Amino acid sequence: MKPVNVGLLGIGTVGGGTYTVLTRNAAEIARRAGRPIRIAAVADRNPERAREITQNACKLTDDAFSVVRDPEIDVVVELIGGHGIARELALEAIRHGKHVVTANKALLAAYGNEIFAAAREKGVIVAFEAAVAGGIPIIKALREGLAANRIEWVAGIINGTTNFILSEMRDKGLPFIEVLREAQRLGYAEADPAFDILGIDAAHKATLIASIAFGIPIQLDRAYVEGITDLEAIDLKYAEQLGYRVKLLALTRRRADGVELRVHPTLVPARCLIANVEGAMNAVLVKADAVGATLYYGKGAGAEPTASAVIADLVDVARAATTDPHNRVPHLAFQSDQLHDLPILPIAEAETAFYLRLAVEDKPGALADITRLLADQSISIDAILQREPEAGEGKTDVIILTHVCREKQINAAMSGLQGLAAVTERVTRLRLETLEG
Amino acid sequence: MKPVNVGLLGIGTVGGGTYTVLTRNAAEIARRAGRPIRIAAVADRNPERAREITQNACKLTDDAFSVVRDPEIDVVVELIGGHGIARELALEAIRHGKHVVTANKALLAAYGNEIFAAAREKGVIVAFEAAVAGGIPIIKALREGLAANRIEWVAGIINGTTNFILSEMRDKGLPFIEVLREAQRLGYAEADPAFDILGIDAAHKATLIASIAFGIPIQLDRAYVEGITDLEAIDLKYAEQLGYRVKLLALTRRRADGVELRVHPTLVPARCLIANVEGAMNAVLVKADAVGATLYYGKGAGAEPTASAVIADLVDVARAATTDPHNRVPHLAFQSDQLHDLPILPIAEAETAFYLRLAVEDKPGALADITRLLADQSISIDAILQREPEAGEGKTDVIILTHVCREKQINAAMSGLQGLAAVTERVTRLRLETLEG
Repeated sequence: MKPVNVGLLGIGTVGGGTYTVLTRNAAEIARRAGRPIRIAAVADRNPERAREITQNACKLTDDAFSVVRDPEIDVVVELIGGHGIARELALEAIRHGKHVVTANKALLAAYGNEIFAAAREKGVIVAFEAAVAGGIPIIKALREGLAANRIEWVAGIINGTTNFILSEMRDKGLPFIEVLREAQRLGYAEADPAFDILGIDAAHKATLIASIAFGIPIQLDRAYVEGITDLEAIDLKYAEQLGYRVKLLALTRRRADGVELRVHPTLVPARCLIANVEGAMNAVLVKADAVGATLYYGKGAGAEPTASAVIADLVDVARAATTDPHNRVPHLAFQSDQLHDLPILPIAEAETAFYLRLAVEDKPGALADITRLLADQSISIDAILQREPEAGEGKTDVIILTHVCREKQINAAMSGLQGLAAVTERVTRLRLETLEG
Repeated sequence: MKPVNVGLLGIGTVGGGTYTVLTRNAAEIARRAGRPIRIAAVADRNPERAREITQNACKLTDDAFSVVRDPEIDVVVELIGGHGIARELALEAIRHGKHVVTANKALLAAYGNEIFAAAREKGVIVAFEAAVAGGIPIIKALREGLAANRIEWVAGIINGTTNFILSEMRDKGLPFIEVLREAQRLGYAEADPAFDILGIDAAHKATLIASIAFGIPIQLDRAYVEGITDLEAIDLKYAEQLGYRVKLLALTRRRADGVELRVHPTLVPARCLIANVEGAMNAVLVKADAVGATLYYGKGAGAEPTASAVIADLVDVARAATTDPHNRVPHLAFQSDQLHDLPILPIAEAETAFYLRLAVEDKPGALADITRLLADQSISIDAILQREPEAGEGKTDVIILTHVCREKQINAAMSGLQGLAAVTERVTRLRLETLEG
């Protein structure tokens, strides 16, 4: 069969990995795909870098638009990132009837609805396995492998940088800022780590997951996002003592009245498999009605793991290219005329359990006041841990785990708790998910 | 679009689950597939059972051949099991131009080459996601999600019954036979548990995995199979002390000189995620060159988890039915004219580490004799654990963990070890895999 001609936009880390893997495994990939998949053109702002990697084995240019308009190109792989020029290039490629493969979650989370609509119009595929959880085939699992199911919720560790930082904070008992510096030194965190540590990258991915899990339009602006910058090592320690680990969890859940979509530090039971995902690894736990819980684990970033997902998409595109578009897997898993307008709920309506840490003066009645304020908001307590005050210290930490409640109930209790005379510092509040049911 | 008409052969546990899920999630599945998928005919030897489940909503018959020949049926779902009549029905369905979806690993492990060849001849699909690891979409991950990779090895816990038994033996320190009885009482083991506890079921699945991972024909007769019936609780305890868990692992690995394909009880490091897969759950760990290690976890059996896989296949078939057969995902992941004849290696050539337990009289020189016999076969020792003999006992257990060697090296050492005067009982030997590299 005729080879598939790929135009590669951007030959940085992932682009270089894609080139390397396609070259190294050319025979194995062709054995599967039934035809060669070859990079016919590369566009990069740094022609030297492109020349070094490709050894001039394909067309090189610094004009990405010439690639997306090149009649010889069947599929465009967009690895430029961001959503300025990348959006223009994706739309221009679609306009020229090219299929598009991208690893760009920021682009799809912001402009996915527009891009997928344009692709439908032209009958081309936009594939994005590499945009979520790197090399883990989670998009394929959700869209195809679990197609029989009504998906109930998805909980993921989908940002390796923050998971590395949290693992190190727990292991070494060090504060966030120190571990961040170390992560930057080791290359696990970027020089500008904001996207990762503020939870924005995870929110991009979670927004895409919510869409393909529940069949709703992409709505990044409705996602609730909280990063790990305020986490204190002491809370990781208390969590551990109570049988939990703290993870930056991306969680999306379908309820009768809407969809929860939130990214925040979360206590999860230490006995759960997902709580034991350490370092820069990713994992996604899916709860669905027929299959129950399934978990997908692997590397969520890096040159070759991400290339693995990009190339899997290229093979899929090669196979589906000659198919009637109506028979293809829909971009967002559900037929485009079958998307629900189930609203994404504000965070105040989220249903979750909580971890509270209160620095309390060691006086009679303090605990009674605290539990009364929670009871006033109909919040039930699951566990209390009160540290023995050290001699002469005069104050102690009280840790409370609540049962599941609406977040607005806790919000209502917080000002009361903070206002108690015995509570001497800012109350720490973290969400807790049992990941059951 | 026109509905897909399914003929269901066998409405027992999985067949009933398939009917239930297709009915309950009809709207959600059609939202994805773009057309209804409906069961148009059911064949079962027990028409009462069929009537009860289907409420007469479709054609019922006790003649399965009438369904596979029915011109109204697009896809036949074979859930009868075994490889007598099931093989005839699958081949007859193919002859009549029907696509086939099956959960029948025994059939495909024994007759897959014949059945897939017949399907290619007629241009129809035979899909079998449900045959391996139940609801976990591992066939899809291996065939499609990891298509960019050269797969190096696959290690799976792919039999829930034996994993349940091993979890219970470890938790409660009870002997195999007692836990088996309990598993039978709880419905985790069949009245005749031979297929599971002897490792045969896992070998069927491992044989299919090896084929789609490496692109080799199905060769069940070359698989090495060892069950869990001889396992003693004491070895699970020693393994634990050394930082390992014992699992019935199905392992297949590509080497330059051939493929290892083996199912046996195996020590795996307790810190590995797969070592923490407990109860009747399944998990498959895949090592591939680009993506690294990925893990897939979920329920490997049961009515609805298996139905989830059956229906995912039905959706795939519905989409690919109108595709040119050359553009479909090949049955065994690789194009049929691209299968390798890489041999499956005999177990004596397997490369693995070992756990040895020797009951040794507490005399000077015993350990020197043992280590000398291992050194004579160039086997390096990784760890030794010698239990303190209790007062007046006069003998003790010596546990040795070896480095990786060829199995024939250990075989050569075994008779020497067994023949030592100080070794008072049969030497226990288990394989150990670090699941690294």
